[in-house]
Amino acid sequence: MIDDIRLDSEQPLQHQLYQRLSERIIEQRYLPGRQLPSSRQMAQDLGISRNTVNAVYDQLKAEGFLQSRAGKGVFVHEDIMTAVNPAGPGRDKPVSGGMKLPPLPALPWLKTKRVEDASLPFQPGLPNLDAFPIRSWNRILHHQESRRSLRGYDSIQGYQPLRRAIAAYLRTSRGVRCEEHQVIITNGAQQALSLLAEVFLRPGDNILCENPGYRGARNALGRFGNPLIPIPLKNEVLDVEALPGLAPARLLFCTPTHQYPMGGILDLSQRMALVQWAGQNGCWIIEDDYDSEFHFYNKPFAAIQGLFENAPVLYMGSFSKTLLPAFRVGYLVVPEAVVEPVLWAKQISGGETPLLTQATIAEFIEIGQFTRHLRRMRQLYREKWQLFQQQVTAKLGGLVQPVAESAGMHLVLEGEFDDLALSQWLKAKGFGSTPLSAHFLGEQVRTGLVMGFASANEREIEECVTTLRSGLEGHRHRRGNRVS
Amino acid sequence: MIDDIRLDSEQPLQHQLYQRLSERIIEQRYLPGRQLPSSRQMAQDLGISRNTVNAVYDQLKAEGFLQSRAGKGVFVHEDIMTAVNPAGPGRDKPVSGGMKLPPLPALPWLKTKRVEDASLPFQPGLPNLDAFPIRSWNRILHHQESRRSLRGYDSIQGYQPLRRAIAAYLRTSRGVRCEEHQVIITNGAQQALSLLAEVFLRPGDNILCENPGYRGARNALGRFGNPLIPIPLKNEVLDVEALPGLAPARLLFCTPTHQYPMGGILDLSQRMALVQWAGQNGCWIIEDDYDSEFHFYNKPFAAIQGLFENAPVLYMGSFSKTLLPAFRVGYLVVPEAVVEPVLWAKQISGGETPLLTQATIAEFIEIGQFTRHLRRMRQLYREKWQLFQQQVTAKLGGLVQPVAESAGMHLVLEGEFDDLALSQWLKAKGFGSTPLSAHFLGEQVRTGLVMGFASANEREIEECVTTLRSGLEGHRHRRGNRVS
Repeated sequence: MIDDIRLDSEQPLQHQLYQRLSERIIEQRYLPGRQLPSSRQMAQDLGISRNTVNAVYDQLKAEGFLQSRAGKGVFVHEDIMTAVNPAGPGRDKPVSGGMKLPPLPALPWLKTKRVEDASLPFQPGLPNLDAFPIRSWNRILHHQESRRSLRGYDSIQGYQPLRRAIAAYLRTSRGVRCEEHQVIITNGAQQALSLLAEVFLRPGDNILCENPGYRGARNALGRFGNPLIPIPLKNEVLDVEALPGLAPARLLFCTPTHQYPMGGILDLSQRMALVQWAGQNGCWIIEDDYDSEFHFYNKPFAAIQGLFENAPVLYMGSFSKTLLPAFRVGYLVVPEAVVEPVLWAKQISGGETPLLTQATIAEFIEIGQFTRHLRRMRQLYREKWQLFQQQVTAKLGGLVQPVAESAGMHLVLEGEFDDLALSQWLKAKGFGSTPLSAHFLGEQVRTGLVMGFASANEREIEECVTTLRSGLEGHRHRRGNRVS
Repeated sequence: MIDDIRLDSEQPLQHQLYQRLSERIIEQRYLPGRQLPSSRQMAQDLGISRNTVNAVYDQLKAEGFLQSRAGKGVFVHEDIMTAVNPAGPGRDKPVSGGMKLPPLPALPWLKTKRVEDASLPFQPGLPNLDAFPIRSWNRILHHQESRRSLRGYDSIQGYQPLRRAIAAYLRTSRGVRCEEHQVIITNGAQQALSLLAEVFLRPGDNILCENPGYRGARNALGRFGNPLIPIPLKNEVLDVEALPGLAPARLLFCTPTHQYPMGGILDLSQRMALVQWAGQNGCWIIEDDYDSEFHFYNKPFAAIQGLFENAPVLYMGSFSKTLLPAFRVGYLVVPEAVVEPVLWAKQISGGETPLLTQATIAEFIEIGQFTRHLRRMRQLYREKWQLFQQQVTAKLGGLVQPVAESAGMHLVLEGEFDDLALSQWLKAKGFGSTPLSAHFLGEQVRTGLVMGFASANEREIEECVTTLRSGLEGHRHRRGNRVS
């Protein structure tokens, strides 16, 4: 009678028997009213213990699959199918082998590929993972790891000592005007952007974006279908003089202290003009201060957020580059009246930021480790930058043009080649990069490779440039049907 | 000449001097062309070192605030204001004391208060923080904490060993039909809901929700303004027979294995009827399996996701209750064709889930600690549940009616009182709760308190019930102008 049931030794027997029986009942291979063997018989037939069978029968009875009749035995429950299809027609169409899924959600409207496996050397945005002071970090982690107050719920806005530490750091290092109650901890910079899109944008609102620019911002800000309007660059920074000629916008995304990816730095009068234009035109500026910590020869320009009191600036930063990407901790600094709407959006879209990491970062900053780490990384990245530039000049002279200020973690190598194909070819060789053309909205493309040198060691820098040389020779002028 | 500048000893002098001078220039208190004192003179006047003044002057020159004229000294840069207002009018309206902010974002449309400070005993949803096996957990954390591969980027979908461990756990314990490639790690259950809303809902799509029901789900699913349609309960579970009479919907949110907050359990024929109704009506079911691990006397019913192959079910769970809320790790299990759109939404809205916690949970599950922990918690919560019920019966008999199956981490105490006022009063006494009336959409309110007993110890349980007795006497029948 139950000779269609086979159990294997891979999984718990009780679980398997439960699955086999319930499946057969649901698929109406065992019809309502059918008698099952006694538990003794079933155990004997399957070569398993009677306790196992009894446990499964009890579970199936509790769940309504089976019913006992006094003195008669165990039966498939009579009411199962009438409950499913009281009107009857279901009886003719047993659900065997599954159902048909309802309409599926639309595939993403974005054309760019989802980034996975982004930890290759030269991947833009990746800091040097080996230089992270893991021992000091772990010491602080061990300090914090057992605290009861870090186990439950704390605050949507973020762990208060971390907000205080960030506010103090930003006031001193970046000239940001802020108090801790204006700081909101986010799941990396990406959540910061996503929350701002949700809070600020209504259907039809325009968003101004540097062109070329940061794709993560475009994806987040454009996710509800709002028009993205490109702001052209002039001398590798956003062209402030072009703003009055563009459509009115609700948000303007920019990277004034190190344009991404071209590396230009807005000077003071451009900064003032930008902020004043925004104030006069009812436009909020999102200032992404993504790698200001790494200016090699001068202190970076102060953030535009701090230029004027009440500047219409939403300031964002992240520890993904200054500490580690895997922590996924970023922050927003917003005017007081903007805090509450952002917290609502954060609560609804994902809730709090994990506490232990927040507490560890807070202590890391408070005891001065953060400043020391930044100083070491600034030195290290400067050396890498020098080596990379020197290698590029020596080996790729004439093939590419390096475009960069003395800052940051990446360099653009501009040139006439199919940058998408070259980037993919390079990935197969074990080196990350992004094609410059992918950073453009619309058609005004320049081509090149965005190379993140921070994550590469000396040997990898030399190898990569050598590899690139042969890659460039193979991909030169092959721009195919690309619009130029 | 610079006698309006005062420095204090609280902050770095260099930072203060930079701030004072840049402010005065931006606010046009020092006009373009004005000469500043020599660094020697400035240092003497302020009583600080000349190196400090030189560093500030260099920075301000680099940023375009100041300019040197050979042999003449240091001046406020001539070009500042013309850059800001090339047409001239700005010269008459210096920006002093700040700007006016652009229009602010709308305040949240949701009426409920944002939850903060949610770690009081009896707060619904809070597990027992003291019973967490912090030593075993930390041992595993120390195992994982220094791994280089946990520092960078890994995968939007989530750490593969964790997805594998979750898939195995759900197959065996919950009868979920899944493989690891269908599992998506989320920032708690809340992000799971938020992602589903983003992926599945188009303007006008309806969402069916149990009434009363879980507010976090309503907030997430209703955040784009889609209509929330209440499904009434019958015998404390969603009334499957009522579904055909409701408007067509794209999503249906439910808690079949322990209705939140009323505690009912859908039986097998109701489960089958629900899933078949959804399949026939093109509706996706979101199955929130939020506390199925804590059924005290029987194994919980298997998840409805596993009832049929290709059931139109989006299954979600979280480690916030089984481990700790502060980890903020949850998961979705979705049909293969739904994975990619959800990953896109996750990438855009916040990126990866922090890696170290994922790796630690994976090992915690793999070595069997998770199962042992659940077994201990099931025993512990059963004892708390028994004590709480016994205390309520003994001390609050006639004042409230406890509503609950033998499962979970909370109990509803139903009764005729102003539950909002009583909940607030109780909070002031140090005990968490949520008013039952707040879990309703529309007007069909019942009143009571949702009490999370899992987080309370024996003493707190006894104290809380005693406190409640006096609170109930104070709040009886005072329902004011509430619609009944």
